[in-house]
Amino acid sequence: MRQVHVALGSRSYDILVSRWLLPELGSHCRRLGFGRRCALLTDSRVGPLHGRVALRSLRQAGFDPVLVSVPAGERAKSIRHLADCYDQLAVHRLERKSFLVALGGGVVGDLAGFVAASYLRGIPFVQVPTTLVAQVDSSVGGKTGVNLAAGKNLVGAFWQPRLVLCDLETLKTLPDREYRSGLAEVIKYGIICDPTLFRRIEQRMPAILQMDSLELAWVVARCCTIKAEIVSQDETESGLRAILNFGHTVGHALEAITRYGRYLHGEAIAIGQMIAARISQQLLGLPPADVERMERLFKSANLPVTIQFSKDQLQRLCAAMKLDKKVAGGQIQFVLAERLGRVRFGQSVPWSLLITILNAPSGLRDAPRCRRVAPTCLR
Amino acid sequence: MRQVHVALGSRSYDILVSRWLLPELGSHCRRLGFGRRCALLTDSRVGPLHGRVALRSLRQAGFDPVLVSVPAGERAKSIRHLADCYDQLAVHRLERKSFLVALGGGVVGDLAGFVAASYLRGIPFVQVPTTLVAQVDSSVGGKTGVNLAAGKNLVGAFWQPRLVLCDLETLKTLPDREYRSGLAEVIKYGIICDPTLFRRIEQRMPAILQMDSLELAWVVARCCTIKAEIVSQDETESGLRAILNFGHTVGHALEAITRYGRYLHGEAIAIGQMIAARISQQLLGLPPADVERMERLFKSANLPVTIQFSKDQLQRLCAAMKLDKKVAGGQIQFVLAERLGRVRFGQSVPWSLLITILNAPSGLRDAPRCRRVAPTCLR
Repeated sequence: MRQVHVALGSRSYDILVSRWLLPELGSHCRRLGFGRRCALLTDSRVGPLHGRVALRSLRQAGFDPVLVSVPAGERAKSIRHLADCYDQLAVHRLERKSFLVALGGGVVGDLAGFVAASYLRGIPFVQVPTTLVAQVDSSVGGKTGVNLAAGKNLVGAFWQPRLVLCDLETLKTLPDREYRSGLAEVIKYGIICDPTLFRRIEQRMPAILQMDSLELAWVVARCCTIKAEIVSQDETESGLRAILNFGHTVGHALEAITRYGRYLHGEAIAIGQMIAARISQQLLGLPPADVERMERLFKSANLPVTIQFSKDQLQRLCAAMKLDKKVAGGQIQFVLAERLGRVRFGQSVPWSLLITILNAPSGLRDAPRCRRVAPTCLR
Repeated sequence: MRQVHVALGSRSYDILVSRWLLPELGSHCRRLGFGRRCALLTDSRVGPLHGRVALRSLRQAGFDPVLVSVPAGERAKSIRHLADCYDQLAVHRLERKSFLVALGGGVVGDLAGFVAASYLRGIPFVQVPTTLVAQVDSSVGGKTGVNLAAGKNLVGAFWQPRLVLCDLETLKTLPDREYRSGLAEVIKYGIICDPTLFRRIEQRMPAILQMDSLELAWVVARCCTIKAEIVSQDETESGLRAILNFGHTVGHALEAITRYGRYLHGEAIAIGQMIAARISQQLLGLPPADVERMERLFKSANLPVTIQFSKDQLQRLCAAMKLDKKVAGGQIQFVLAERLGRVRFGQSVPWSLLITILNAPSGLRDAPRCRRVAPTCLR
């Protein structure tokens, strides 16, 4: 078993990475000294697969769990389902010493985390991420939240889990597309700060795609270590943590305008990362060879790297980006790469360049540098 | 102008107490370095009285405020109105550096505080409490939240304001009943830790009821100082802060079972404090003379001190108390007084004694000590 420590003073916690951790959920929770009552929050896809094992483990450890289930998919991250969860915790009389277990992917983790952050002004919670994207990214670091009609994650809180259990066995029940989507976040860690990780993924992609246990344990633990280090230095994203958003400015907007129905999160940020890479090439001189390695690696994971926007889509994409939390003073902020493994956050990108690149999906190799276009999206 | 500092490290802030502070709102906000866009959250009663002055002051200081109004009364503290507020902030594109001003009583402050705590995972906010109960209690200390059908304040966050402006002039627009309700919280500070304050209120009640400015400034600043000291020692109510809940266990339940329609908060906690006093007399030996002084003082402010419960009401009251955040391991926790100015928190009270006292509204002078009654509310 690999163990990663997230150092946040009184809010520190461990991430455990191994196969067959779920049956030990109850005993891990017992060590944390929680009260007897608890809730297992999961969704209609993961619940039938892993809910029974989780509930049995909690009961065997002396806990009194109630099952709270939400529909599978991004639509569960809504105020409506948030309110449903609150009501169920209240009906089952969860108290301040009670706790919540989030069993599922990023949607369940984000929703459960915000429920835990706000029910009774905060109760403890444990993350049991069952998707790759949740194991390497969303379950670690305490970002929780739900979506509004106007945009993704516009409501939430920073609320750290007390423990994260990454059970590699649960990944085997993932649809192939979902698993590959998670690789977009894994590749991101390589781009933003770890060329060694990037190279290893390049070399071992076949083993990773086959979910080789040893390889997977190394990769998941490595990503969690990077995230833990970044979060420890900047818990509430006042600076450094922003580098984790590489590819997310366009990625989130893309998910929003397609109503979270067309792209999985990882697919959207794969496209977003390639757009950020092409902007980086123009603004920070990111070497074209690095851009090509990125594109090749995303493609080897069968992830999309380009998209052809209609004029209407482009307008809606820009409108969605303007509502992003990363906007400051009306100016959109990007994370851009200088080279593989080194990025800068808080980079202002001229709308004209952004639109040029969005209009040239296969990159700017053939496009004129910083060509002026009709400023349809300018404020 | 009186100034009280709430010492909470990087979350420290000042409370200013004076007449005519509202017209200076904008310049105070400018000193805090907020972004240009902001929202003024108020309700349908306070908005028409003070909204224009507040908006003008913000605009004159260079801000771009949007007015967000909710219906007056406790029903605004609902998930539904919370969602409405989020949507309005998103439509007006408030960003992370934007801020929220809560202009109104405790309901507006609690709702706006939770909106600020959770919109974009937290934006700064300023409290401008316009009721006595909000000035001396709810606007200070960072407790924010909304109600669920199952109970009051079951959802929320600890989120400190960046500034509190207690404009004494705004109290003059309060209905008399609302003002007197606030005195229940003022008297509470005397009971829990300040016999000098208690005696002064006893001596100066006529001047206080007439809103004598000098007297009022002293009283409000004194209450804020007490609250600031308690909050500085225990921000998230892991211990000492619980003493502020004196009278609230029964008071909150009473508000809940009367659907927040019959009693104002201060009226409910006046009754709750007298019930806590009678329990204290039985369990901690609080002198009967102290109980009588409390009763006399509440009465001099024209506040209710007793209530006659029907059997049905009593059952519902006990059910509501069991859902209180102050329940631990199914055992209800009270704050009880040893003597005027000294209380203990986390006191378990036998249901049998509680029911006996709830059944004897005029006190236990004529009731047998710890008489056994039908345990209708026992778990």
